[in-house]
This record gives sequence, structure tokens and C-alpha cells, in this order.
Amino acid sequence: MEQWDLYVIITTKSGKGRSTIELVRQSLIGGATAIQLREKEMLARDLVNIGQKIREMTLKAGAKFIVNDRLDVALAVEADGLHIGQDDLPAKIARKLLGPDKILGVSVGTVAEAKQAVADGADYIGVGIIYNTNSKDNVGNPIGLKGLNDIRKAVSIPIVAIGGINHTNAREVITAGADGVSVISAVLGSDDIASAASQLLDQVKSAKAGL
Amino acid sequence: MEQWDLYVIITTKSGKGRSTIELVRQSLIGGATAIQLREKEMLARDLVNIGQKIREMTLKAGAKFIVNDRLDVALAVEADGLHIGQDDLPAKIARKLLGPDKILGVSVGTVAEAKQAVADGADYIGVGIIYNTNSKDNVGNPIGLKGLNDIRKAVSIPIVAIGGINHTNAREVITAGADGVSVISAVLGSDDIASAASQLLDQVKSAKAGL
Repeated sequence: MEQWDLYVIITTKSGKGRSTIELVRQSLIGGATAIQLREKEMLARDLVNIGQKIREMTLKAGAKFIVNDRLDVALAVEADGLHIGQDDLPAKIARKLLGPDKILGVSVGTVAEAKQAVADGADYIGVGIIYNTNSKDNVGNPIGLKGLNDIRKAVSIPIVAIGGINHTNAREVITAGADGVSVISAVLGSDDIASAASQLLDQVKSAKAGL
Repeated sequence: MEQWDLYVIITTKSGKGRSTIELVRQSLIGGATAIQLREKEMLARDLVNIGQKIREMTLKAGAKFIVNDRLDVALAVEADGLHIGQDDLPAKIARKLLGPDKILGVSVGTVAEAKQAVADGADYIGVGIIYNTNSKDNVGNPIGLKGLNDIRKAVSIPIVAIGGINHTNAREVITAGADGVSVISAVLGSDDIASAASQLLDQVKSAKAGL
């Protein structure tokens, strides 16, 4: 599942003042295989305007485009899919409203949540947080590589690991069973976003190749 | 169009500490013909849980149930429709995603916006603000009865007037061309919500009857 190798979550406030579109552009230049638009404070009108641009950019780059939380915006901009957490729309309802062809991702932190997400129709799960992170609020305690591996053994759909992942630990996350890594600050917090993304992608690819 | 006679917008922060469901219940007891759930800060999961309860309550009461901004939540709880402002999803996209059977309402403040809303597929328009109000932020300047009447002459779909309306001015708003009145604080800010709603509904009905 190369499409999840490097899954960059775009939250503009983590981007050191650069625009949303610039964060996406540099991430794609660096090789991001998936882009998630996660802007909790943004008006729906703005999400649609920006989402339409990201849709074009990701299509050109051959990357997946996923919208966080807002199923309506995901449909409005013809994104590839929706990502929801445990505070968002219930996964079963989201699956029904999305139809069978859109990608549905669900954030989970336990084996029970992972199994429920599969039962509800998730196509992939975001698993974490793996390590401590400053990028997201209210994310719970780190589950570590052991927690990730327990979930890996319990479900067969793709896993994107999240939480404190960077180029120094991406290899062990992949080895523990993740199909890809999801990052915010490791890429968006860098002065050279494209370079940070590229470096991280290299780690994921070489780990997956067993190198 | 009796369904818009008394359109109560539920924002829990305007309800003097009473629960969302209690605000809805008392409004329905007082005769609200439509309920809009407008909670900008609420998580989608909570919107769905509360929305499902409001769906049951409004069906029993024979009132319309409209969700503000979140088309996905409107679909998830099988509301009668969606209300959007100029900062929300574009109306044309919302119409397409809702399908032909759901009600689409659009907030407008000018004749041009009203005509555009009709062209985009709105079933009704929320027109205002009519008078000054403290209930909503960033609502623009009051358009008064003259502004309302100008819009009334320009479009034929139902008009729900909003902004500073209460039992002392509801009659003139109806006379100026509104099909109903939309309120937040005039009902939710009252110690006796059901009584405030009932009193307001009486004014609307008698004005519509030419009494």
C-alpha cells in the first residue's frame, strides 16, 4: 500500500506562517503520497475553496486527498476520502453517507477501536498516538510500538501510524507493522518542507524494502 | 407556509444554562413550527447524538428540523433540511449533495444574494438582520423593514426574517412580507421559553390573518 507511505496532515497553524496551499505544494514536491486537510477552525466556504485547489494538486501529483471530519466538504471537493476520529461522525454513518467508493479512515488507539472501525467499514486506520507530540490536542497517551503491533496483529486493513513520528523513528514504526507514517510537525514544522518530507519518505521506503 | 411561522434557532449558549434538548422541548411546547440546530462549537459526534433526539421530537410535534452549516450532520440525522450562510458550503454544491427532496435554506441580506440563492436552488431564504441583535456575531448591518420588503418583491420563495425580532415587532415583519420569524434570544433568552414562543406565534398568526 504505497499510497499511505507518507501521509501529511495539513494544519496551517503548524506551518510557521506559510499558506495552506504552500504547505501542500512543498509536501507533494517532497513526495507525500497522501494529503489530509485538517483545519478545525476554518469556515466551510474556505475549506471548499482550498479543498478544490488541493484536489487539483493531488491529482496532478498522484497523491491521495483525504478531508478530516467534514464529510460534506469531502464530497463537495470530490476528495478521495474522509478521515474521522472518535469525536466525529460515527464511522458506520459516515460509511453509509460516503457510499462504497470513497476511502474512509478512522483514528483508533486500541485493539477494540480498531476492530470496531473495521466492522463499521473503515478502509484504513490511523493508529496512535505512537510517541508524544505537540501537534494535536487531546490525543491520549502514547501507545508505543507495542500498542501499534497489537493492533497490527488484530486487523488486516492498512495502518497509518501517527504521533511524534519523524525521520529518526519512522523505520521502527514500519517494522512494528505500520503501512505508512502520518505526520504534521515533522514535515510542516521544518524550514524545508520538501526536504523533510523526502527524507522521511526515504526512511519509510527503505524500511519497507527491508534495507 | 405555516411551517415557517415560528422558526426557533437553537444555540445552547443563548439558553441560560438549560440543555439543548430542554430548549428544543420547551420551544416545541410553545408551538415552534421549525427548529434549527445551530451549534458552531459542538463536535460532530455530539451533533449527531443530539440531532437524532431532535429528529424524534420534531417528528412527534409536526415541526420541521433544519441543521445549520453541517450538511453531513443533516444527512446523518435525517433532518428535513440544511441552512447555510454566506460563509458555509456554496448553495449550489449543497443543493447537489442534498438531493432534490431535502429543504435548503440560505441566509441573505440583499436582493442580489436573494436572487442568487433562488438560482442556486434554495427552498427558502433567511432574510436579515432586520433589527440589531446580540445573538449572532458578524451579521452585518440591519436591513430594516424596507430591506425585507425589497427582497420580498424580488423573489417568490418563502422568507423567514431574522435579527432582533420579538413579540413587539413580529407583526410588522410579517406585514412587510415575511412568511415567518426566526428567533434565538426572544425565545431562548426567556425564563419561560414555551410561553415566549407561544406569544410570538400568536403575533405571527394574527398578522398573517390580517387581524
